[in-house]
Amino acid sequence: MKIRIPESADPRVVIIGGGFGGLNLAKKLRNKPYQVVLIDKHNYHTFQPLLYQVATGGLEPDSIGTAYRNIFEKSSNIFFRMAETLEIDPKHKKVHTSIGTIGYDFLVIATGAKTNFFGMEEVEQNAMAMKSLPQALDLRSLFLQNLEKAVNLEYGDEQESLMDIVVVGGGPTGVETAGALAELKRHVFPDEFGELDFKIMDIHLVEAGPRLLGTMSEKASEKTKKYLEELGVMVSLNTGLTSYDGKVAKFNNGLEIPTKSLIWTAGVKGNPIQGVPPELMVRGNRIKVDEFLRVPGLDDVFAIGDVAAMHCKGKLDPQPMVAPAAIQHGQYLADMLLRIRKNKPIGIFQYQDKGSMATIGRNKAVVDLGKLRFQGVFAWFVWMFVHLMYLVGFRNRLVVFVNWAWNYLSYDKGLQLIIRPFMKIPKDKAPLAQEIPA
Amino acid sequence: MKIRIPESADPRVVIIGGGFGGLNLAKKLRNKPYQVVLIDKHNYHTFQPLLYQVATGGLEPDSIGTAYRNIFEKSSNIFFRMAETLEIDPKHKKVHTSIGTIGYDFLVIATGAKTNFFGMEEVEQNAMAMKSLPQALDLRSLFLQNLEKAVNLEYGDEQESLMDIVVVGGGPTGVETAGALAELKRHVFPDEFGELDFKIMDIHLVEAGPRLLGTMSEKASEKTKKYLEELGVMVSLNTGLTSYDGKVAKFNNGLEIPTKSLIWTAGVKGNPIQGVPPELMVRGNRIKVDEFLRVPGLDDVFAIGDVAAMHCKGKLDPQPMVAPAAIQHGQYLADMLLRIRKNKPIGIFQYQDKGSMATIGRNKAVVDLGKLRFQGVFAWFVWMFVHLMYLVGFRNRLVVFVNWAWNYLSYDKGLQLIIRPFMKIPKDKAPLAQEIPA
Repeated sequence: MKIRIPESADPRVVIIGGGFGGLNLAKKLRNKPYQVVLIDKHNYHTFQPLLYQVATGGLEPDSIGTAYRNIFEKSSNIFFRMAETLEIDPKHKKVHTSIGTIGYDFLVIATGAKTNFFGMEEVEQNAMAMKSLPQALDLRSLFLQNLEKAVNLEYGDEQESLMDIVVVGGGPTGVETAGALAELKRHVFPDEFGELDFKIMDIHLVEAGPRLLGTMSEKASEKTKKYLEELGVMVSLNTGLTSYDGKVAKFNNGLEIPTKSLIWTAGVKGNPIQGVPPELMVRGNRIKVDEFLRVPGLDDVFAIGDVAAMHCKGKLDPQPMVAPAAIQHGQYLADMLLRIRKNKPIGIFQYQDKGSMATIGRNKAVVDLGKLRFQGVFAWFVWMFVHLMYLVGFRNRLVVFVNWAWNYLSYDKGLQLIIRPFMKIPKDKAPLAQEIPA
Repeated sequence: MKIRIPESADPRVVIIGGGFGGLNLAKKLRNKPYQVVLIDKHNYHTFQPLLYQVATGGLEPDSIGTAYRNIFEKSSNIFFRMAETLEIDPKHKKVHTSIGTIGYDFLVIATGAKTNFFGMEEVEQNAMAMKSLPQALDLRSLFLQNLEKAVNLEYGDEQESLMDIVVVGGGPTGVETAGALAELKRHVFPDEFGELDFKIMDIHLVEAGPRLLGTMSEKASEKTKKYLEELGVMVSLNTGLTSYDGKVAKFNNGLEIPTKSLIWTAGVKGNPIQGVPPELMVRGNRIKVDEFLRVPGLDDVFAIGDVAAMHCKGKLDPQPMVAPAAIQHGQYLADMLLRIRKNKPIGIFQYQDKGSMATIGRNKAVVDLGKLRFQGVFAWFVWMFVHLMYLVGFRNRLVVFVNWAWNYLSYDKGLQLIIRPFMKIPKDKAPLAQEIPA
């Protein structure tokens, strides 16, 4: 079966994946002389940097997702298809998906990253990850359901292990999640669960390396640790998870923490696609690309964003797996494709490091912008401003702003609906948005 | 196993169900000399009158739900338990639930209503209902997934049956849903699904009786039909559904409509509880109560809201199954319980008809307030004002207001995330919020 797309005189660009890379590429090709087909398994773009706020009850899911059709409603050359991509066939310039096959003139692999459990199957079975909206909602349900269960138990180990939460991974997601949980424990839960003694609830943040936010400045790492400890988070460095059976988390330095909630944010890997020759796969499950983001040896195939690893002058020199790199990839590639149509010369991709930032809690954030480094209240406002500006869609910006203002003024994070229970569903039956009913 | 609730010198009121009746009863007993235990299978109150806006992409689910613990965070005498009630045992003054057993001094059955398919099992299997937030989200996903499938088909019957939507039941829910769908078809879908021809999409509203909004004035019914037809809804009166196999809806006057989406809003029935003696059950699956909302023959047991049917002076004289009746029941019963504590005299329950209203679309609503009846723009503003005022929680009012203002100004209803696919799951495995993992 073929995917039905109207005939066009323009060359066809098929983009697999509508994350930061794929979305920005498609946006820059709006109403330009290409026919663009965007394929994604979800019908919406997810603003991943704020997933942790959905998981911790600060934002609604709709506020950080935008339907692709909404974004492209006035772009007659952009065609969205909700489908799971099965395999690419570069030899015949075709892509096979769950809804049929489509040919391309140019193919862009923008399939992003997925959680990396480094082969620890037991951890994968029992830990929670946070890479998609359904996962963020499951996490929210898990915390709240565990507290509902704890209310009905006597004080003791079982109750404590329902209340304690372990966050593994000291990158931005781990830091932000631990900080938000600590604020819930301080300002929200004690009023709502008056029968529980929150002195026994521990929020742990565990990092295998020697410092938090390892890609940021030493100063940012130190301040982050200080802020988290002020909020009551128990931070453990140089501590790697070795096993988690759903009951007890064990670490390589002998630490053992009984907990029913373990959030794994300690690793990602590329999420490549069937049909890419194995010799093109490099470290971290990523696809090798040259300085023009071309996949070497495959005609008219590009890879962008987290799944792409740049290889130039004979050695691997990949951009970090962060949103700004993916956005720059998408914008560069759009520009290149437009230049190709006009037979104009093309320069190589050059990454601009935009700096990095993380928020720990109310009035507490850290920002590194090149040599400009600051922490505290001003950093927190900068963090909020930047995230609002990068959010997709005016409605979302408005609603997120209203929510943040409300949360700030009221100390309340009231989005505590358990709309779906936490259930481990066998992977082949996962009923989340990945699945497209036939 | 016993449900753990702290000891108290005050008598214990157990309320089963936190809909409009149970919630308002508990609110009026805040910080009063009763220990109140509120049991609900969800951890949040649902503002049912706006469910249709969640289903049609105008509001987020969190905006019309409020966690009970959030509502009662400063009330030390109110104890919430998330549990499914299994059976009441009036003889021993106990309630058995999925998390254990609890004794009561006073029991209030406030279990509300559920969808009534009048024994048509095939319809129940294949139609969508809209009584809870998970159902509203499933409906939203169904519409959008069907359109995503239609995009990939050639023009023909199969495509048309994916686009056509049949709403059965001309009460407020049916009218409001059909109106909102017609607006999506006019203002939103054509921009977003540019490849589909929305001239072939039909929105049907089918009512078995002789007019829409049968409980309102003739004038309101007429205007409603006129407004809906102006919006392009195909209204059929005196037309009862006889079968729906998931493909074709068949009606008692020979009408047949092929459709993949049938929404059933044509009936509700009481949702009583195991343990109520069968002789107390009356028409519509409701529990007989006297003028004091007492269940006759059972000591200290009351029923309020949709599940209660008043029987006085030897005949059945039930209040309508609407929110204002449930709210009045709850408030009356709170007042009565407080008078009992003070040994004050008690008057019988007297229902105040607050009138009724329904919205059809932008600037189009009908309002009957006793002899005061009006339709159009002013009615629409009144409808919005009343619904905002009755919403629970300031945050929800604020966010709903912002959304409505945005939708009005932009003609956009952008909440089109398919977060969960539409799947028919066998009832015993339903993974929605009803289930509380052990």
